[in-house]
Amino acid sequence: MTSNLGYGPAEKGILIVLSGPSGVGKGTVCKELRRCAPDIVYSVSATTRPPRAGEVDGVNYFFKTREQFQQLIDQDQMLEWAEYVGNYYGTPRKFVEDTLNSGKDIILEIEVQGALKVKQKFPEGVFIFLLPPSLNELESRIVGRGTESEDSIRSRLSVALDEIALIEHYDYAIINDQVELACSRIRSILTAEHCRKARMVSKIKHWMAEVKK
Amino acid sequence: MTSNLGYGPAEKGILIVLSGPSGVGKGTVCKELRRCAPDIVYSVSATTRPPRAGEVDGVNYFFKTREQFQQLIDQDQMLEWAEYVGNYYGTPRKFVEDTLNSGKDIILEIEVQGALKVKQKFPEGVFIFLLPPSLNELESRIVGRGTESEDSIRSRLSVALDEIALIEHYDYAIINDQVELACSRIRSILTAEHCRKARMVSKIKHWMAEVKK
Repeated sequence: MTSNLGYGPAEKGILIVLSGPSGVGKGTVCKELRRCAPDIVYSVSATTRPPRAGEVDGVNYFFKTREQFQQLIDQDQMLEWAEYVGNYYGTPRKFVEDTLNSGKDIILEIEVQGALKVKQKFPEGVFIFLLPPSLNELESRIVGRGTESEDSIRSRLSVALDEIALIEHYDYAIINDQVELACSRIRSILTAEHCRKARMVSKIKHWMAEVKK
Repeated sequence: MTSNLGYGPAEKGILIVLSGPSGVGKGTVCKELRRCAPDIVYSVSATTRPPRAGEVDGVNYFFKTREQFQQLIDQDQMLEWAEYVGNYYGTPRKFVEDTLNSGKDIILEIEVQGALKVKQKFPEGVFIFLLPPSLNELESRIVGRGTESEDSIRSRLSVALDEIALIEHYDYAIINDQVELACSRIRSILTAEHCRKARMVSKIKHWMAEVKK
């Protein structure tokens, strides 16, 4: 009767997928999370684009040749991937699984379509949708980048609304009204998910089995 | 295009049911929660036992005659009830529903069997099971009360194990290793539940409808 019910290292980590429309501030929230929740691991993407000065393989990206990348796709080793300006970008399954098996939580910041592909292969992940406080706010953020025409802004807003409609496939929705508040909500979700009965039951069974000895 | 997506007063509150075996420290956790989370309302029980000196109707208990209590049972106005040492004790549905409709969260601290009865009538509640760090610890807490014989302690421990097996009906499990930590986990669960997509979707629909105007 000495076994303890701790949140111990035997527990698997949780995959958090943070997504939301372009311009909602996913990157800013992740940057703040890295600061305030250094215990969470950040998923590293693979790409076929050549490394830029200072970029380190396995830290900024996993740099792959086109053949290597294609092989990973063929072997179902990519949770999702897409081609962008002639290069492949994707999320390697192995890095995510190794992190989870080591008991650490991992966060994947990704656009809405990519997140839905990840969900097909990893339904046990926790899918969080980041929302703008208002559409006005989203418009200001897109305009604020100062790189787009009025037509382009209108088209991006329309895409954003279509993306927001996909929220039905997600587990949680968080409003990015304040970055610190959004981060605190993500951390609460992670804590709550670790307390889910389904994640605790195996631990309890083990404990009760010991008790009966 | 001016509407805001806030966690506004239009949202209904959440019923949290905190339960767990006798001796696990439900009362201590609730006392600490009252201190650190004064925004949560605490459910007030009804009873047929006469008020003691200083007890206020509607604060400590809703004091009822046996006839009034029986009428509430007959009208399905009790989420659960039980008889104890010749008196009725129960959870009035109205107080819980009025609080939720006002947008406030309410917590109900209750033993395991009572919680399961509440679940039948209120499946949308969030059911949290409080666990002892170990069975040794639970034994110490029961012995610590100093009021029971060895046989009685053994019998209470056996009841506690049977109660722990009922965890399968709960949503979350929290280990009461440190009271402050247990409270912080409960608050995280509450925050996460408010961020659940199902609770946000009605808000988003309204918002998107306004956007289309």
